[in-house]
Amino acid sequence: MSEQQQLIIFSPSGVVPEPARVRRAAKRLAQHGFAVRLDETALARHQRFAGTDELRLQALHRVAQAGIAGEACVALATRGGYGLTRLLDGIDWPLLARSLEHGLRWVGYSDLTALQLAAMAHGAAGPERVAHAHDHDHQHGEHCSHAGGWWHGPMANDDFGREPADLDDVTEACFVEAMGGELEAVGFRTEPEFDGLDVTGRLWGGNLCVVASLLGTPHFPRVKGGVLFLEDVAEHPYRVERMLLQLHQAGVLGAQKAVVLGQFTDYKKSPLDRGYTLKSAIAHLRATVPVPILTGLPFGHVPTKVCLPVGRRVTLAVQGKDAFIGW
Amino acid sequence: MSEQQQLIIFSPSGVVPEPARVRRAAKRLAQHGFAVRLDETALARHQRFAGTDELRLQALHRVAQAGIAGEACVALATRGGYGLTRLLDGIDWPLLARSLEHGLRWVGYSDLTALQLAAMAHGAAGPERVAHAHDHDHQHGEHCSHAGGWWHGPMANDDFGREPADLDDVTEACFVEAMGGELEAVGFRTEPEFDGLDVTGRLWGGNLCVVASLLGTPHFPRVKGGVLFLEDVAEHPYRVERMLLQLHQAGVLGAQKAVVLGQFTDYKKSPLDRGYTLKSAIAHLRATVPVPILTGLPFGHVPTKVCLPVGRRVTLAVQGKDAFIGW
Repeated sequence: MSEQQQLIIFSPSGVVPEPARVRRAAKRLAQHGFAVRLDETALARHQRFAGTDELRLQALHRVAQAGIAGEACVALATRGGYGLTRLLDGIDWPLLARSLEHGLRWVGYSDLTALQLAAMAHGAAGPERVAHAHDHDHQHGEHCSHAGGWWHGPMANDDFGREPADLDDVTEACFVEAMGGELEAVGFRTEPEFDGLDVTGRLWGGNLCVVASLLGTPHFPRVKGGVLFLEDVAEHPYRVERMLLQLHQAGVLGAQKAVVLGQFTDYKKSPLDRGYTLKSAIAHLRATVPVPILTGLPFGHVPTKVCLPVGRRVTLAVQGKDAFIGW
Repeated sequence: MSEQQQLIIFSPSGVVPEPARVRRAAKRLAQHGFAVRLDETALARHQRFAGTDELRLQALHRVAQAGIAGEACVALATRGGYGLTRLLDGIDWPLLARSLEHGLRWVGYSDLTALQLAAMAHGAAGPERVAHAHDHDHQHGEHCSHAGGWWHGPMANDDFGREPADLDDVTEACFVEAMGGELEAVGFRTEPEFDGLDVTGRLWGGNLCVVASLLGTPHFPRVKGGVLFLEDVAEHPYRVERMLLQLHQAGVLGAQKAVVLGQFTDYKKSPLDRGYTLKSAIAHLRATVPVPILTGLPFGHVPTKVCLPVGRRVTLAVQGKDAFIGW
């Protein structure tokens, strides 16, 4: 990273149970050259939330204003959990859009899916093209080196707050590259049956439960011809299938160029499964939905997660078993 | 019950893990004067399903045809689980509507919510008025004594399949009365703050997860001025809240006269809750949604469950702490 970037850590959703983790994250990020500060209510507590709804809404707007004022280039969430659904009706989307125009990059996943997709629905998704470091493109932000935008990526508590030995190298390197404007693609292994696939569209998605929780509301973005990526945790395959069928029956999946599945982990099998697995669910979906459904994206509630520019135009290409999402 | 009614037990969703329970249910229902028979694929097995999608779809249609042919007045599901979502796009709704015109009453809950609400969405909900035994109203069915319709109520495996000592008296009596055309209202204790409430509208609802899983799809009924009842099992209060906020943000809750909550049970608390409970969730919803939200309905994944005529016009009235849903 050529110049020091200002990074704010903030809490829009669940309470931070161990502040020490967030302090450890701040230290780690400082080692990577970020000028780190904690938003003033990042460690607030109200029941299971990081502060009352009003406090968290103020925090979101304060972070956006910091971006506009040139006091932040990266807004990194501490953690997800649950909480953004309560705020969606009250968010000042034009303010968030302005923060992106000033180069603020918002990073997070899980519950942050609600914020990122609602921003797309409300015209606050930033430019569809990502500027890279080698473009020397300073026009987007007056203060930040790179274009603002929404990034699906790691979080302070979940990732950078781990003991250094437990922090995944790929996750860390990918974040530093993405924030430095140097990340141009992510690659992963997928099924050979998609060899030759080459599609272009807007990248969107996130946590499947949260995506589904926006359906039918004004906060669900209407993306046509997109590349939809999804992950989830602690959801039995039949629930994953049910949510994907809902997206299918709602006309969402059929309108995409491709669906890319990340990691679906930490669910409990049932004695009633009788051979029904995540594979069965995916097989059923492939037989039902006339759109390529790839697996293997290194993203989810797992240590290894890449950074993905939500709302941006990407190309998804497969050669043999190797898939690339590039922008 | 004045005359013997023909009752078919069928399986539209999950596999029946212990056929002995269904045989016990058949025996119990016969003791109540029903002429009971098992649909030919009621005990079929395919992974976690009671047969392949095709087999279960055929079963649904076969049961409807039995109603039309005068060979069944009651269609009782064995159990829920998961499976109807897969069938919704393929169901012959006019056929199901005809079965209702011939007096067939379909009974079940949980995953059956998908069938009942999709039937409403597709114009297969039957008449809005329920005929009672004392109306001597035989016009609706050529063979059955009472009007056809969708009933939220107990199931063969979950309820009548219990050991007689474990079968809840209220559940059993309510079912027998409802099927005999004698049930005209259900009563329950609710919050005193709703004293004096008196509203009339279409009754609809069921399992909250399944209701939410229909949102955004053509299978979600657009009910205005209704009485929406909801229950769920193994869903943490924050997930209950998120689903209810989704229904709110989608404009569904605000369009109802009242929301009536049944039992929300068997969820695991989290150390992150920090005082956040189901009560907190309901308090937040009451502060957010401009519609009465009552609790106390004896329905859910619990032994005691009343029978509720889905799609019918009901009056919800509260006197002191006593609530009544009558039709």
